Amino acid sequence: MSKKLTSRAEDYSKWYNELVVKADLAENSAVRGCMVIKPYGYAIWEKMQAELDKMFKETGHQNAYFPLFVPKSLFEAEEKNAEGFAKECAVVTHYRLQSDPEKEGKLRVDPEAKLEEELVVRPTSEAIIWNTYRNWIQSYRDLPLLINQWANVVRWEMRTRLFLRTAEFLWQEGHTAHATKEEAVEETKLMNGVYAKFVENFMAIPVIQGVKSESERFAGAEDTYCIEALMQDGKALQAGTSHFLGQNFAKAFDVKFANKEGKQDYVWATSWGVSTRLMGALIMTHSDDNGLVLPPNLAPYQVVIVPIYRNDEQFDAIAEVAKEIMNDLRDRGISVKFDKRDTLRPGAKFAQHELQGVPLRIAIGPKDLEDKTVEVARRDTLSKQSVILDRITVVMEDLLEEIQGNLFDRALQFRDEHITPVDNFDEFKKALETKGGFLSAHWDGTAETEDKIKELTKATIRCIPLDAKQEEGVCVYSGKPSSKRVLFAKAY
Amino acid sequence: MSKKLTSRAEDYSKWYNELVVKADLAENSAVRGCMVIKPYGYAIWEKMQAELDKMFKETGHQNAYFPLFVPKSLFEAEEKNAEGFAKECAVVTHYRLQSDPEKEGKLRVDPEAKLEEELVVRPTSEAIIWNTYRNWIQSYRDLPLLINQWANVVRWEMRTRLFLRTAEFLWQEGHTAHATKEEAVEETKLMNGVYAKFVENFMAIPVIQGVKSESERFAGAEDTYCIEALMQDGKALQAGTSHFLGQNFAKAFDVKFANKEGKQDYVWATSWGVSTRLMGALIMTHSDDNGLVLPPNLAPYQVVIVPIYRNDEQFDAIAEVAKEIMNDLRDRGISVKFDKRDTLRPGAKFAQHELQGVPLRIAIGPKDLEDKTVEVARRDTLSKQSVILDRITVVMEDLLEEIQGNLFDRALQFRDEHITPVDNFDEFKKALETKGGFLSAHWDGTAETEDKIKELTKATIRCIPLDAKQEEGVCVYSGKPSSKRVLFAKAY
Repeated sequence: MSKKLTSRAEDYSKWYNELVVKADLAENSAVRGCMVIKPYGYAIWEKMQAELDKMFKETGHQNAYFPLFVPKSLFEAEEKNAEGFAKECAVVTHYRLQSDPEKEGKLRVDPEAKLEEELVVRPTSEAIIWNTYRNWIQSYRDLPLLINQWANVVRWEMRTRLFLRTAEFLWQEGHTAHATKEEAVEETKLMNGVYAKFVENFMAIPVIQGVKSESERFAGAEDTYCIEALMQDGKALQAGTSHFLGQNFAKAFDVKFANKEGKQDYVWATSWGVSTRLMGALIMTHSDDNGLVLPPNLAPYQVVIVPIYRNDEQFDAIAEVAKEIMNDLRDRGISVKFDKRDTLRPGAKFAQHELQGVPLRIAIGPKDLEDKTVEVARRDTLSKQSVILDRITVVMEDLLEEIQGNLFDRALQFRDEHITPVDNFDEFKKALETKGGFLSAHWDGTAETEDKIKELTKATIRCIPLDAKQEEGVCVYSGKPSSKRVLFAKAY
Repeated sequence: MSKKLTSRAEDYSKWYNELVVKADLAENSAVRGCMVIKPYGYAIWEKMQAELDKMFKETGHQNAYFPLFVPKSLFEAEEKNAEGFAKECAVVTHYRLQSDPEKEGKLRVDPEAKLEEELVVRPTSEAIIWNTYRNWIQSYRDLPLLINQWANVVRWEMRTRLFLRTAEFLWQEGHTAHATKEEAVEETKLMNGVYAKFVENFMAIPVIQGVKSESERFAGAEDTYCIEALMQDGKALQAGTSHFLGQNFAKAFDVKFANKEGKQDYVWATSWGVSTRLMGALIMTHSDDNGLVLPPNLAPYQVVIVPIYRNDEQFDAIAEVAKEIMNDLRDRGISVKFDKRDTLRPGAKFAQHELQGVPLRIAIGPKDLEDKTVEVARRDTLSKQSVILDRITVVMEDLLEEIQGNLFDRALQFRDEHITPVDNFDEFKKALETKGGFLSAHWDGTAETEDKIKELTKATIRCIPLDAKQEEGVCVYSGKPSSKRVLFAKAY
């Protein structure tokens, strides 16, 4: 298989698809729209999970696990939520297969094993969880209830793309219950902030925190907070959402509590989630025409050592030095792999590690041993430098930090260069066509205008930034008055 | 809710069900046979996962993720496997719901959204994984392929019990591919050994390693290795299995590789798994009439500190000492919780921590502060001792180790006392009735005898122990010659 990728300039979408497969991150499966996450891709996801899980626990959340299936009667209880997901539900109707009497060796659904009530494979778990919370919550003493679940969910999307939009995906979903509206709103914002911090510090992706317009809200939410990132092709990507659900689910599932005064009231809710979609954001923010570029904080291994040798004796001498380097790096908490495969030449190894985005590569040859140096290559800048062996640990530690920072800075610069203030619809369309990115524009606040702009340009309101300033202006489309700018973009 | 449990002597099964719910481990859900794993139960499962995951990685395995759904045509490809699981499959037939024209506000399956091919919710993943491996394996260089998956699976069991047998459960499934039969057999044994080590060292449950008789094998396996444990009621529980799959799946899915000589051959396979069923084994091995008893290695928190006070001043003084103890314990890697809830009296807290199996409890009252002592209670022996404050860290560290060892020793003694050699069918039946446990008996090696014994006594062959000695004898049922003893028992 050729490792050469289509370039981004040639076909960004094709570049992405090829990169995901060739860098061994994921691939399509025999099941329509469902992906296989390969070990290298899964190792990155595991690192994300570990860090997020730690952040959730530090903010007082506990993990639990709820059923994969939602009985139809529960699924339909919260109407807006049901309406939002009904069109893309996988539905279990039978619980047994039997030998097909018409085709030998084949199976068919046993018509007698039809379920009395259909089961929806969870597209999200509010329904099953709030039905459970009814028994868990009696009094204010049971609140707040701060729970997270790591799980798979299924949304029967018609047009799927690896990581970005798949019929089955992995995610975490937080579901919390509170005694007051204020506390629930605070939780919603807190978790959106946790996502922002994670995505910026670990994934090195700058994000804009904001709230969604009503049309873009989660089905069943009163308010949806989000973090929005910008990809290299100028399209936005929603990287995480945190919903204030009001008392909608509490009312649909009759979840009440006795407050301190003994009065019964409905519970206030939030839910929040990020998914394997983040892998798509990671890839499309940092990678280049040579392949994946990984921030050191998420790389399955941060450093790879490639020996360059002509005979066993040379190999042994290099292996000894490599072992010392590895011990020193591991002592500092740096993950490192010695690529001693004898089935590939160094050049092929270099290409593979580049394709897979390993942040730093150390090459050691016989000449290096003599000089007591090694050659170090950075993945982010593709630059090389010779490093004195004695200094290698310190240099690597510094470089990893530098790369993490550089990736963020680079992405931030690109993002900031692609936020264009526009003041009328001509400017809007022109900026969208020529430059892409976020358009900072006044909007009259109506769904009608939002729909019209979407219809005409494919751009949607990504968010109303939390830090948007009050500013008198007129809507770019309708000319009606507006008091703050919102961000439009074409989006994944 | 009363915390008092039914005693084991009164009704073991009822005791178990009550314990699982009252100790906040799990509960039944609105979905038939599916459970909700509650935060406290999930925290134990997370500890199991973390340790197992580490052991898998140390033995060279990587994690990946494969689809939840298996298209029917793939599911039926390996006939024995398909036959084994067809009777208990949840089947997705449709991908959309719509408004029910006959019932306002209700949904129904959209008859036009019928899938061309039904999707089976994975009961196990051999089929979908081996269908994927076909593309991953071309040559001996791609082998061995050592992959594990953490996932949910669904088996539509008719009679379910929390943790022990649920329609959906969580597990890990290892799926490996090898160039030779020998290597695959070695892997099968290795992973069975990893399970044994984990269950003995972390769960403090002694196990017998063995192989299954043909009737008890995994559907599609050539050989099934297992670890068998004994519960307090004298019934056995299969705690983990590791299967040598021969070339069955490679042939069903056409997975061939070129060996070093360039010759094509089918790949050799193994699979192995443990599940949330282990939670059931943990509970039924150690717990008592007061509730759960947890081995320190798996306790969500190993130590709880309960303050005993009459006023704020006393509370503050105790809290200060508690804080010091917590810092010291945490420095030694001991997890500890300060139970400062003001909504419960100390006695109620003691009862709850006992019910939830916290290994060690420290109680601190005003008198203790004066004496510079604290009261320490062990969950495993229900004994109490006064400990000088200065010595508390060392004592706790020693006690945790002692408890871990004591639980194992206690379970081992019970298990060993319940392995009864029997030499004829009367002895067999009598021992089974009066004592339960494992019966070490000669068996003629036929499925016919095995079936007959099962029919007459409900006892099955749990395993042929790996360390069974060659010994001439006659089958307890048929009187035919036999060369080694096998273990029979009634089982979960």
